[in-house]
Amino acid sequence: MENKNSSITTQEVDFAQWYTDVCKKAELMDYSSVKGFIIYRPYGYAIWEEIQKYLDSKFKAVGVENVYMPLVIPSSLFQKEKDHVSGFAPETLIATKGGKNVLEDELIIRPTSEVLFCEHYKNIIESYRDLPKRYNQWCSVVRWEKTTRPFLRGSEFLWQEGHTMYESEEEARKDALRMLEIYDKMGRDLLAIPFVKGIKTDKEKFAGAKETYSIEALMPDGKALQSGTTHYFGDGFAKAFGIQFQNRENKLQSPFQTSWGVSTRLLGSIIMVHGDDNGLVLPPKVAPTQLVIIPVQQKNPEVMKKAHEYLDLVSKLGIRVKLDDSDRSPGWKYAEHEMKGIPVRLEVGPRDIANGVCVLAKRNDGQKLVVKESDVKAELPKLLDTIHDEMYKKAFKYLLEHTTEAHSLEELEKILDRGGYAKVMWCGDQACEDKIKELYQATARCLPFDQVPFEHKCLVCGKKAEKVVFFARAY
Amino acid sequence: MENKNSSITTQEVDFAQWYTDVCKKAELMDYSSVKGFIIYRPYGYAIWEEIQKYLDSKFKAVGVENVYMPLVIPSSLFQKEKDHVSGFAPETLIATKGGKNVLEDELIIRPTSEVLFCEHYKNIIESYRDLPKRYNQWCSVVRWEKTTRPFLRGSEFLWQEGHTMYESEEEARKDALRMLEIYDKMGRDLLAIPFVKGIKTDKEKFAGAKETYSIEALMPDGKALQSGTTHYFGDGFAKAFGIQFQNRENKLQSPFQTSWGVSTRLLGSIIMVHGDDNGLVLPPKVAPTQLVIIPVQQKNPEVMKKAHEYLDLVSKLGIRVKLDDSDRSPGWKYAEHEMKGIPVRLEVGPRDIANGVCVLAKRNDGQKLVVKESDVKAELPKLLDTIHDEMYKKAFKYLLEHTTEAHSLEELEKILDRGGYAKVMWCGDQACEDKIKELYQATARCLPFDQVPFEHKCLVCGKKAEKVVFFARAY
Repeated sequence: MENKNSSITTQEVDFAQWYTDVCKKAELMDYSSVKGFIIYRPYGYAIWEEIQKYLDSKFKAVGVENVYMPLVIPSSLFQKEKDHVSGFAPETLIATKGGKNVLEDELIIRPTSEVLFCEHYKNIIESYRDLPKRYNQWCSVVRWEKTTRPFLRGSEFLWQEGHTMYESEEEARKDALRMLEIYDKMGRDLLAIPFVKGIKTDKEKFAGAKETYSIEALMPDGKALQSGTTHYFGDGFAKAFGIQFQNRENKLQSPFQTSWGVSTRLLGSIIMVHGDDNGLVLPPKVAPTQLVIIPVQQKNPEVMKKAHEYLDLVSKLGIRVKLDDSDRSPGWKYAEHEMKGIPVRLEVGPRDIANGVCVLAKRNDGQKLVVKESDVKAELPKLLDTIHDEMYKKAFKYLLEHTTEAHSLEELEKILDRGGYAKVMWCGDQACEDKIKELYQATARCLPFDQVPFEHKCLVCGKKAEKVVFFARAY
Repeated sequence: MENKNSSITTQEVDFAQWYTDVCKKAELMDYSSVKGFIIYRPYGYAIWEEIQKYLDSKFKAVGVENVYMPLVIPSSLFQKEKDHVSGFAPETLIATKGGKNVLEDELIIRPTSEVLFCEHYKNIIESYRDLPKRYNQWCSVVRWEKTTRPFLRGSEFLWQEGHTMYESEEEARKDALRMLEIYDKMGRDLLAIPFVKGIKTDKEKFAGAKETYSIEALMPDGKALQSGTTHYFGDGFAKAFGIQFQNRENKLQSPFQTSWGVSTRLLGSIIMVHGDDNGLVLPPKVAPTQLVIIPVQQKNPEVMKKAHEYLDLVSKLGIRVKLDDSDRSPGWKYAEHEMKGIPVRLEVGPRDIANGVCVLAKRNDGQKLVVKESDVKAELPKLLDTIHDEMYKKAFKYLLEHTTEAHSLEELEKILDRGGYAKVMWCGDQACEDKIKELYQATARCLPFDQVPFEHKCLVCGKKAEKVVFFARAY
């Protein structure tokens, strides 16, 4: 058995090592013998299941249907959309043997499934009556990465990918924005993470897309983490794949396409945005266990009886609860459940029972509340909401305090070195974007929807500029 | 748009073609450009989601935890358990290139994940306190099959695979039986399919298992369809992988292992067991849409108003309901929703409204009930239960009528030619089992738990026999 209680590297000493320590010690994942292919352990997978449950119901509420597409893409099919293939080909895993045979058409393990959806849509879309099509799948994808880190960049990762087809450009554009809004709301309501929403520059957009939108989270080391994207494709793929439908004027035309996805990278966001030197701090709504009960004198039958009463009471509230009656000491248990980021710890001992109270300890700020037994039922749901709000506010404050206007290249460098977003006025020329990357290793994260220009000239070339871009170093 | 209303091949003319027609016309699946890799369309996938929802809650109720293991198995790791590798190696898909590089250790796309779970368990099991481990994953697996049929045999299919480790042989054996019981109950309660439960002969058991148990369904063409298996492994894999734990006597020992799984093959069972010449007949509990409302005069505002009232009423009962207000004729709609196997059709027209009634048409037997509007709320849930029971009983009757004692090889041949299970007294010798396969192309499906010996000698060799084996031709 692992020593759960062993200390982890502090964030200040080595943030990257702290991150890896938390991933392992909180038992979110383990490594397999193939680089970049991780094992999602029960505790990590359960968080992903909460995210799935939330998103799946939101998707279905707007009419999205789930499907499952093949794991493999024939090499010949993959070549059809030129921008797309040049973006993905360098990082694919390729199967060349099946059974005892060498395959004539090599099979690419899907890095993303645009071409598979297009091939299928070509077969099933004939009339405007067949539109819109809005399909989603929950699956894993493979991208043969050189540098990998748990949840942040993997050779295999879990995600959902939505792929839609619409009659009109307008509807498709709306879809890309609607799905981005669902992702953003998930941040606020489920993960307690504020995202910056915006559109990508041409340089940073998805291979083959006309427009890419993203939600970007800011990590406590000052780096941005792209946490979800939606893409508007126009009719480029549709034309490349020969997808046509009879429109309302009885003419053949190509439909307009979007795709959108979030992945287990969201677990990386959760770990970093909320975690501390004692380990994980989970937002209550995705925590697999929202409250853990710790009986302080385990051999005392009265204490154990009361602990079970609380277990009964809390689970009846619909709160995910566990009673830790293992033979460890209370101190060991405190450390263990802090490491796992369980939002609330309920302690109950003989003195508490005598006083008709229990102690509720909040993981997010360490605060301890002494609560009357008769108030627990009313207080607990409110407490979970409070914790969620506090975590969101803290992350939002950090985001605000680390988003700064850059009025000169010198200021830009300082902002980037301190960490966070630099707001940059930009002329729209890729050369200026390239220059910032070259000078400071920072990329344009997005042009936020909330555009408040603060100067009239481009930070780099000095020409006329109307757009604000957020630059940051990024994962 | 496909012509939903076009006729399908009848079962009597060509059962195999009927099956494929239903798969396609009911929009359960489509083919991709790679043989054996099918597309699970929304309607087919939604049935699978109902199965997942049911099983996932049953698994969690007995303490099973979900995980996700890598898609790939290094060739070197795959070799570790000899029986297992010889069983699976001939039908694997192998990746040999990643990015621009040729892989040193080729990667096998998982055909099943015993070795991955063993590798992980070796890292996390140290003490008896770490046991039991009961993990499950929902994923797809790949087996490079020569002959493929939708849902029945695919190069890729969806499944769940549970993998457990226990302190004692006894607990592990119990687990294999407990999980089989869950599968069997799913047949009765969810799919309306009676299974024969039993243990496999050594010849038919899973590669590497000590014992394999199965649930077997009987198709209307008289062939058996293995619909789920559970395996007891002993400590063979554990020893091959060096998994050891400190037991309660403070000594190192190997744990005992099981695995168990069901797949989208269950969709094949549902289609064949219940379907008819008008298409799919779905058991109410897995039907994505349980009731469809068809307004008989669509341009009549009174009819449409009433249709929407029924929509509201039925969905408030928690019944999955759709209102078909498309511009097709009622006749077209009847055929379409029959093809899709929707359990109940609610028809409402002006005369029904005048009489204060609606018509409920049952998909399973075509019966039409005229029900008072005020009774719909009370009657509908009962009706769905009745339909489930009728479907189960019909399938059970078929099973009983097609399970026959064989007292001679001649009788055996007749039984197999007619279709169904032949009960055979067997000495336990594999030569006799082989002979039946050679003579009649039938395999030992299982030794059913319900053993009622009816003779004292082996059907083949005439030696002493105590065991009843069910033989059948099989998918």
